[in-house]
Amino acid sequence: MSSQPSHPALLIPGPIEFDDAVLQSMSHYSESHVGAPFVNTFGETLSMLRKLFQSTDPAAQPLVISGSGTLGWDLVAANLAEPGDEVLVLHTGYFADSFADCFETYGVKATQLKAPIGSRPQLPEIEAALKEKKYKLLTVTHVDTSTGVLSELKALSELVHKVSPETLVIVDGVCSVGSEEIEFDKWNLDGVITASQKAIGCPAGLSISMYSGRAIETFKNRKSPPGSYFASFKNWLPIMQNYEAKKPSYFATPSPQLIHALHTSLTQILSKPLSERFAAHRATSQKVKKAVAALGLKQLASDPADQANGMTAIYLPENVKVPELMPALMKKGVIFAGGLHKEIAAKYFRVGHMGVSVTDPNRDDIDRALKALETSLSDMGYQKA
Amino acid sequence: MSSQPSHPALLIPGPIEFDDAVLQSMSHYSESHVGAPFVNTFGETLSMLRKLFQSTDPAAQPLVISGSGTLGWDLVAANLAEPGDEVLVLHTGYFADSFADCFETYGVKATQLKAPIGSRPQLPEIEAALKEKKYKLLTVTHVDTSTGVLSELKALSELVHKVSPETLVIVDGVCSVGSEEIEFDKWNLDGVITASQKAIGCPAGLSISMYSGRAIETFKNRKSPPGSYFASFKNWLPIMQNYEAKKPSYFATPSPQLIHALHTSLTQILSKPLSERFAAHRATSQKVKKAVAALGLKQLASDPADQANGMTAIYLPENVKVPELMPALMKKGVIFAGGLHKEIAAKYFRVGHMGVSVTDPNRDDIDRALKALETSLSDMGYQKA
Repeated sequence: MSSQPSHPALLIPGPIEFDDAVLQSMSHYSESHVGAPFVNTFGETLSMLRKLFQSTDPAAQPLVISGSGTLGWDLVAANLAEPGDEVLVLHTGYFADSFADCFETYGVKATQLKAPIGSRPQLPEIEAALKEKKYKLLTVTHVDTSTGVLSELKALSELVHKVSPETLVIVDGVCSVGSEEIEFDKWNLDGVITASQKAIGCPAGLSISMYSGRAIETFKNRKSPPGSYFASFKNWLPIMQNYEAKKPSYFATPSPQLIHALHTSLTQILSKPLSERFAAHRATSQKVKKAVAALGLKQLASDPADQANGMTAIYLPENVKVPELMPALMKKGVIFAGGLHKEIAAKYFRVGHMGVSVTDPNRDDIDRALKALETSLSDMGYQKA
Repeated sequence: MSSQPSHPALLIPGPIEFDDAVLQSMSHYSESHVGAPFVNTFGETLSMLRKLFQSTDPAAQPLVISGSGTLGWDLVAANLAEPGDEVLVLHTGYFADSFADCFETYGVKATQLKAPIGSRPQLPEIEAALKEKKYKLLTVTHVDTSTGVLSELKALSELVHKVSPETLVIVDGVCSVGSEEIEFDKWNLDGVITASQKAIGCPAGLSISMYSGRAIETFKNRKSPPGSYFASFKNWLPIMQNYEAKKPSYFATPSPQLIHALHTSLTQILSKPLSERFAAHRATSQKVKKAVAALGLKQLASDPADQANGMTAIYLPENVKVPELMPALMKKGVIFAGGLHKEIAAKYFRVGHMGVSVTDPNRDDIDRALKALETSLSDMGYQKA
């Protein structure tokens, strides 16, 4: 039995439901941010992140900084690109627009390669774009939280390394790390940015990211200073290296409680083979997608190869509106998210299926949610065509 | 009795000891960041911050953003100053150097007005500096965490408004908000940046700040876009206004758990007159400073008018070293902080006396700490000269 009070199951694409032990870690008594017990916890947390990213390269560097996932964009734009640099942003929805805005803030020229809603840019187009111009880096949204579109990283990274070997491969993994397979070293990725509150299963408040030795070298070879102070690698790299070496270090005060919660969450995740975790997310995703199809509903991502395993974005039936569906679901103890893609926000809704709602056999969140969706739609007069 | 497990009393100048109810709020079950219950909590939190700052001006704007106190510097430097602008940084220790670095990152020219260690720049010097050059803004560290020096804000702000009325008055209140009197409106302040983990009594992870209508206008009249994306007023102002109006809004995912903890902490703080809170901090500070003097020890801040009420920075006796004193104190269940000011770090230590350690009559943290200090020094062979 959960020690959490009864509450609606939060099945949005983040924040997700959290494990009891993770939430209890949030209440850890106060510790000095430079005292041995906390330094040890932070150091172990960084080492565990390497395992989550399946990375053993000592030149790679994980960062954990107080902030939201959005801070990851500043980390990339202010450190790995310089004013005047060109970058290629693969667009699968809302988040590429914002990432491009972030680059522009730091004087970096972002070219967006856009795909139709529910799809993703295809390799031949990307190859053509990379041949046209020299890009300092390319960004891809691994799972676009606004559309539920999954991008394929392995073949993409191979392509970039073949066609434009100097271009860094940067992954926005805010909605994928912990639910989708990522082999950081093997796939030759240069940066993955993410946040704590999605498939990693720790409350919001931490920007988590991982950079290759090549990315760090790119930073060290900058001609101009980093464009941000709070997001500066210059300020953070020595801090993270010291914490992982179990040495106290100070640039800005970390959140011991959030780091304890992340430590607990990562310990749980790594207690089983990651392959099992990803398989569980794939299986639950298939269950959700089959139930959605059985209701006669269509996903934004029409091609199964483009469908995320940690969330599903679903077109509303004709005559069913988000402001009516959500309260009906809430009465049944379930929370889904509305649409987020600017062009069609009112026409669809999103279901998150990540973390303990997927992996904890004592939870029935997903089954309850699918039942609640079916009943709510039926109550609203919807019938499968 | 506390529900927290037995642990050493954390008496450093932040993070501080936290109240049980605040820590329990950190474990709040997961909520949607755009759902009505959380939007309501966040909105109330922002409204309570206005009261903490003793501000009723509707044009003033509080911000609460996931991040550390350091992020406040970026908020000021990237939004309220523009590349090429001149700013005057009053220097009382470590933090002015860093704030100046932050300004330089955004192309802003920072002139530091330095005082001897343990002191603060005096009004006549500040007046002379303001008359010499036109400064876009002036920054003052209200309490310098590295030296325990308290700056006087009221007379300073009056001076700035008299001598250089267009110059914004910006306060680094990371180590003062909640323990030192601040009358935001009445003193005509334009910005106060702070963090959650010091006298506000909420775990680290939130950048909290407050800006005057005049500061917001300065931002709106910028000729260049803001220098940061994550720290951009353009991105955050509408979000904060919406949350306070209880409307869901999204730029980056806030941390519901930290916001709940801040809500609990502010509710506790505002349940009594603020004047009582400040008086309690003054009284405890006097008790600590008297005990320190009785031991024959000297503070960095030699003038009582320059001494903070939430912390005390104390020179070590000859022959007593930080690496020996700290473990001795730890054995007695007390944690103090070492020195931080680059020039004399090894020669002093710091004691924090903020929040529940001061205001909760069920806690004896301070008395135990003073006793532990006396006994530890005595055990180490120290005798008052």
